[in-house]
Amino acid sequence: MSPKVFMVDVAAADAAEPASGWAGTIQEVSPGTPSLQVTDLGAQRGDGIFETLGVVAGYPQAVETHMARFAESARLLDLPAPNQAQWRDAIRSVAARLTTTSQWGIKTVLTRGVEGTGVPTGWIAATDSGSEFPLRTAGLRVVTLDRGYPSDAAQRAPWLLPGAKTLSYAVNMAALREARRRGADGAIFVTSDGFVMEAPQSSVILRRGNRIVTPRTDIGILLGTSQLSVFALVAEWGFETAEKLVPTSQLRDSDGVWLLSSVQLATPVTRVDEADIAVDRDLTDRLNAALLARRD
Amino acid sequence: MSPKVFMVDVAAADAAEPASGWAGTIQEVSPGTPSLQVTDLGAQRGDGIFETLGVVAGYPQAVETHMARFAESARLLDLPAPNQAQWRDAIRSVAARLTTTSQWGIKTVLTRGVEGTGVPTGWIAATDSGSEFPLRTAGLRVVTLDRGYPSDAAQRAPWLLPGAKTLSYAVNMAALREARRRGADGAIFVTSDGFVMEAPQSSVILRRGNRIVTPRTDIGILLGTSQLSVFALVAEWGFETAEKLVPTSQLRDSDGVWLLSSVQLATPVTRVDEADIAVDRDLTDRLNAALLARRD
Repeated sequence: MSPKVFMVDVAAADAAEPASGWAGTIQEVSPGTPSLQVTDLGAQRGDGIFETLGVVAGYPQAVETHMARFAESARLLDLPAPNQAQWRDAIRSVAARLTTTSQWGIKTVLTRGVEGTGVPTGWIAATDSGSEFPLRTAGLRVVTLDRGYPSDAAQRAPWLLPGAKTLSYAVNMAALREARRRGADGAIFVTSDGFVMEAPQSSVILRRGNRIVTPRTDIGILLGTSQLSVFALVAEWGFETAEKLVPTSQLRDSDGVWLLSSVQLATPVTRVDEADIAVDRDLTDRLNAALLARRD
Repeated sequence: MSPKVFMVDVAAADAAEPASGWAGTIQEVSPGTPSLQVTDLGAQRGDGIFETLGVVAGYPQAVETHMARFAESARLLDLPAPNQAQWRDAIRSVAARLTTTSQWGIKTVLTRGVEGTGVPTGWIAATDSGSEFPLRTAGLRVVTLDRGYPSDAAQRAPWLLPGAKTLSYAVNMAALREARRRGADGAIFVTSDGFVMEAPQSSVILRRGNRIVTPRTDIGILLGTSQLSVFALVAEWGFETAEKLVPTSQLRDSDGVWLLSSVQLATPVTRVDEADIAVDRDLTDRLNAALLARRD
């Protein structure tokens, strides 16, 4: 089923942060109808940013952390600051039109707009993700793929846009195709000097005894919105948490590895390259139940 | 002035290489009219490829080398092979509608199409570049910027898409903004181990005595279509040519540095970081005159 698409009238909202809502700033597009000019810099050069939020039982999840990252991505790309009140209202307005029997993914996009106009373009696409998520139980096999960058590149070279969730995802998609060519279901990027980074569309966490660990973002990865939720949850449950440099070898030497994303939530990793990984079924189920229960 | 936009009916042409032309496979779009769905993977994820050809006095230049690189980019991204006969005819058909008093840039784009359809999207945008190119005389100041990759990353990691001209240009655009922030006009990317790569939208050549040198493409850069033309020209004029590893320091220790691209053609570099560079006015003028005279 094709996504529901809504154009967001970003230009109208840029003037000032409003006291009240933004009724009228989103407009639904009929399925299959073009609503973007090919001269939009988002389409010409992947020059824009996005977020994907999960929607469960009609509730868009982790809206504030997604909006914070959206604003940070805009800052890193020198895009106009998104009007967060407008986007929050647009997200809630779209979520209110979705069936509550399915989970949905809501993608918010802000591009640099049609070349020469200086006016950004915004849209929201809502995709029905159904009600079955077999990977949360079956898990997936991943391969590690070199992202080409050493772990200190991000700090030396901010023009590489570390930490920004941009539309320029050709390499992320190529990595997923490479993983499938190797008989795996997904990939985990590693630095050229051997540290775990992130997956092409999700964050990575590891369990080591009573500790839940995730790679430090300063090696050039996104701050994971689901990872933030998971760390808050497991801290309540008595785990220690740590953001650190994670040598690639620790993936194979752990009590559980998960990919975290806003729609799939916590997916256990069953195999890394040639090594089988212990699956912590109990913690996986607790994580997904708690992530699904979020109503923020 | 906004570009002239033509949608290319790629799907209709995919069936077979035709014996004759492809009349009817391009359709002009009225200025400002949306012709792309936001669910197109080109717009969602920069998942597509492009070429930019120069058009001089109505003649699209270096069509064959651009089409060869377009096909190679498609192969590297696992896109359907572009039907080259169709694209050639489309380019010529578009070029025939352009004023001959201006130079134009013709951009050909092929994306992975609307998500879920498996049908690629194609378009051509023709931009009037005018008749004045002051940079070919005045030159430009560049800064060197670390591209983050060591010179052997491309050979280790083909999923980084080295050699493919993709729509995922957010980093290229960020590098140009960084250059402007530093008071320069452009950037030259260098590897993390100190070798010259390419500029965000052009190739780099250096003159060292009787030799014209360009970086080897196997360090993860595009094969330059204008660079190929220039090497053929200067070989006729008695220069030696070489593709090699070029240490960054050689930029400052040369008898001329140029950026080469299909519309700007040969632009001399007047400054690299803090060092002034000798400008070889005579060779610059010969190069641009010869590049403008191409009728292929």
